[in-house]
Amino acid sequence: MGGVMIRRTVFFVSDGTGVTAETMGHSLLTQFEGLAFQTVTLPFVANTERAIAAREQINATALADGIPPIVFSTMIKDELRAVLRDVNGVFLDFFDAFLGPLESAFGVASSHAEGKAHGVSNIASYTARINATNFAMANDDGSNTRDYGQADVIMIGVSRSGKTPTCLYMALQYGIYAANYPLTEEDLEADALPPALMAQQSKLFGLTIHPERLQQIRHERRPNSRYSSAAQVTYETRRAESMLTRLGVPYFDTTHCSVEEIGSRVLQALKLKRRVHP
Amino acid sequence: MGGVMIRRTVFFVSDGTGVTAETMGHSLLTQFEGLAFQTVTLPFVANTERAIAAREQINATALADGIPPIVFSTMIKDELRAVLRDVNGVFLDFFDAFLGPLESAFGVASSHAEGKAHGVSNIASYTARINATNFAMANDDGSNTRDYGQADVIMIGVSRSGKTPTCLYMALQYGIYAANYPLTEEDLEADALPPALMAQQSKLFGLTIHPERLQQIRHERRPNSRYSSAAQVTYETRRAESMLTRLGVPYFDTTHCSVEEIGSRVLQALKLKRRVHP
Repeated sequence: MGGVMIRRTVFFVSDGTGVTAETMGHSLLTQFEGLAFQTVTLPFVANTERAIAAREQINATALADGIPPIVFSTMIKDELRAVLRDVNGVFLDFFDAFLGPLESAFGVASSHAEGKAHGVSNIASYTARINATNFAMANDDGSNTRDYGQADVIMIGVSRSGKTPTCLYMALQYGIYAANYPLTEEDLEADALPPALMAQQSKLFGLTIHPERLQQIRHERRPNSRYSSAAQVTYETRRAESMLTRLGVPYFDTTHCSVEEIGSRVLQALKLKRRVHP
Repeated sequence: MGGVMIRRTVFFVSDGTGVTAETMGHSLLTQFEGLAFQTVTLPFVANTERAIAAREQINATALADGIPPIVFSTMIKDELRAVLRDVNGVFLDFFDAFLGPLESAFGVASSHAEGKAHGVSNIASYTARINATNFAMANDDGSNTRDYGQADVIMIGVSRSGKTPTCLYMALQYGIYAANYPLTEEDLEADALPPALMAQQSKLFGLTIHPERLQQIRHERRPNSRYSSAAQVTYETRRAESMLTRLGVPYFDTTHCSVEEIGSRVLQALKLKRRVHP
């Protein structure tokens, strides 16, 4: 009480975007719940000069903090990794840890070439992501139901249940064609979906959310409105869930889920074929 | 010649979405260029029963392939990792490799709790992603310039230069408010940007692309049209680049870049403050 929480500095260093280093570091740091961190990403550290500058920045931070920083690194080139390995910090490099065992398993040396991880090695994947993104955007608000035949999945749910970001995430991450239909008050009152949706029933997937959480989200958008009232969110979520159950449309509760988790669960539940592969 | 390329099977196993395992595995596999892989993701392996089923699937694949698969794993629970460690495959677990050194550095044990990595631990981040995604969608086609005051960045470029997926990626990954303005033929002929854009000059960032690649992308959309003709793409990209140069708007060539790389470079170039942190 009264003391200041020490925030350990964490660096994500990469010769590429730093996204892999961030993803890896984030997964690990969430395993240490009581601790506080401040994070610094150093992307595109792709030559010796930059590697030396990164090392100096980390060393200066160690001095200023009085404790060595944690360094999550994804440096592909051996010589750049060697520059950073000398750092005054806890140096955890991803290629250090795993390239050796993979080289043994494959019986060949790795290419140690920078920038491959996120290059457009695969034009088909790139095109799939772009086309799927355009599809998601053109089929976002339910006003256009003509293209549902092309959809891989049609996400349905009340306003602010997480449909739009999930559709866009699935497009970018998996190349999935995801349309998104917001349930209207008319749909909920009629307790029925429009014919354009019923014609594609195998593609439907519902998202629901706890009324309290929905109220909080809607309140940020339109404070103290009917839209964000307790009565309204409770009515909408109950009606939506009972309709989806009655129609046999699979759905789940997004309240405690990230966009990544929702996307991954939908992919698995409907056994969708992704167009972008890891 | 005439032989069939052996595709080594690679599993991504996780008690969460599998996204971290895929990201990590993909980065490593791209270092082995001559080899071919077929990948299988097993997400949400979150209890002993599922871990045993995953191990059986991997062992069956080892038998069928006649060679042990590669297994990239992000299993947080010790007991589930123990089940998979026995597998007939090259088992590379991410937590195995890095949790030990981190526990030493922090002087505390990790929580070994599943599902933290992508949980909504941070409501502020979740809201930032949603709001940024909505902003990107509402400011996608240049027809609405009223909200440019709220934008963190306004991406400009010719049609199909990669603006839309980049804006959406930046919204989801970083919570950045990214608007997107497609350069029109009128803009290019006038060699000038509309006043709404000039009023926000410090936020402008241009994307350009090799004419051949642009032609290929546009051809997929509208084959054999003026829009996808060599003359048109060459004209547009030249005019756009000369205008951006003259106006002092930073830009770069997306031809060999992934959406992740473009997003990361824009973030760095404009020193944008992300709202979602690793």
